[in-house]
Amino acid sequence: MSNIKCIVSYNGTNFSGWQVQNDKRSVEGEIELALFKICKEEISIIGSGRTDKGVHSYGQTFNFKSNIEMKEEQWLKALNTNLPYDIRITNVEFVDDNFHSRFSCKGKTYQYILNQGDFDPIYKDIVYQYGKKLDIDKMIHAANMFIGKHDFQYFCSNSIDEVKDFVKEIYSFNIKEENNLIYFSVAGSGFLRYQVRMMVGTLIEIGANRKDETIISERLDKKGATTTSFNAPSNGLYLLKVEY
Amino acid sequence: MSNIKCIVSYNGTNFSGWQVQNDKRSVEGEIELALFKICKEEISIIGSGRTDKGVHSYGQTFNFKSNIEMKEEQWLKALNTNLPYDIRITNVEFVDDNFHSRFSCKGKTYQYILNQGDFDPIYKDIVYQYGKKLDIDKMIHAANMFIGKHDFQYFCSNSIDEVKDFVKEIYSFNIKEENNLIYFSVAGSGFLRYQVRMMVGTLIEIGANRKDETIISERLDKKGATTTSFNAPSNGLYLLKVEY
Repeated sequence: MSNIKCIVSYNGTNFSGWQVQNDKRSVEGEIELALFKICKEEISIIGSGRTDKGVHSYGQTFNFKSNIEMKEEQWLKALNTNLPYDIRITNVEFVDDNFHSRFSCKGKTYQYILNQGDFDPIYKDIVYQYGKKLDIDKMIHAANMFIGKHDFQYFCSNSIDEVKDFVKEIYSFNIKEENNLIYFSVAGSGFLRYQVRMMVGTLIEIGANRKDETIISERLDKKGATTTSFNAPSNGLYLLKVEY
Repeated sequence: MSNIKCIVSYNGTNFSGWQVQNDKRSVEGEIELALFKICKEEISIIGSGRTDKGVHSYGQTFNFKSNIEMKEEQWLKALNTNLPYDIRITNVEFVDDNFHSRFSCKGKTYQYILNQGDFDPIYKDIVYQYGKKLDIDKMIHAANMFIGKHDFQYFCSNSIDEVKDFVKEIYSFNIKEENNLIYFSVAGSGFLRYQVRMMVGTLIEIGANRKDETIISERLDKKGATTTSFNAPSNGLYLLKVEY
């Protein structure tokens, strides 16, 4: 029995998200369908975590077990042959039997891309078309406040029933500007639901001079009383890397 | 009666092309529908020419006439409010009564974008995912052969019934490489159907060492006997600019 680890890129536009949902097109569902075609049996895959509707990936990682004897490059080819073109497997690796895409995960990196220029229909599904100039220096300064271990309960949509521990560590949070585009890159131990989009959303509000950066210290570690309301749209978000 | 000239960007992915076709979603049809909503009457627009299914635009130009009294910026806003997000008007200008988007056209610039790297699902509809390294120097050299006035009958899909004159002038044909991407930019007096995609397709065959550059001199000005067979896919093609 091989334990097979795969890295997968996908364009999230035409998916209801990573997770299988009845009657809806999901990335996980399409991959399991491809595996069924290859293996002639139902195989469940384990993703490093979910991504929401519209979120893209260059680094999502999953694993599954199979008795079929194929080399890594044969799995890569078989999977891509049976997958739609908005999903591509970029790496296949046999791993230790104990490897588990979710439990073994040591960190993740996300990128968020925003266009300050005019609405661009060509990129409408893969870059958030914000359309106004943001104060990048203010955002860079504010982003540093997220770094370190913090309680992110006010920067997520998870309920207490769902998550025991809202403490996550942010390793780095970089922001750079190239022409009209702004690239946010955030690496951390793990992320709660909507956490990246709420952190980016908050930075956008600060960069737009709608909010002061104290809003971060007020919400971080539950020091204030309000949850973040502005969730930056999913189309600008990319899961770039999962670390093990 | 105002004569109104508009520049329009669109993502061609979900259109059957520029031209209205029964039951199919076309860019022209969507714009005429938006005008109907604004003007409460049927208005026909005149495009600078057609673009095929899947072809994108940052520069397509059209004009129409209307008695409605609105300023340029009001037309821009009214149109974009009534258009789907894969079409955006980027400029509106009142022009001389004689201006005609097709007949007044003095030249066009197209861009073609190709990815030599691994198939990228995020960009699958807006960059041709070729997936192999091409010899850029060979292509740059060969592209120069297109420059000047030539008969392009063997580089188009038009029939003699449809087009009287296959002679077109190419002003410039530039190719540059950035990381794994190749950008072809071609400017000319006008282009026949599939001409840009057939010229780019021929350059790809040369860059891949599948054909020698003499294939261009053989087909140009109908010196040989064969029409170009490889039509580079529409998803990499952009109408960048229409000159008047």
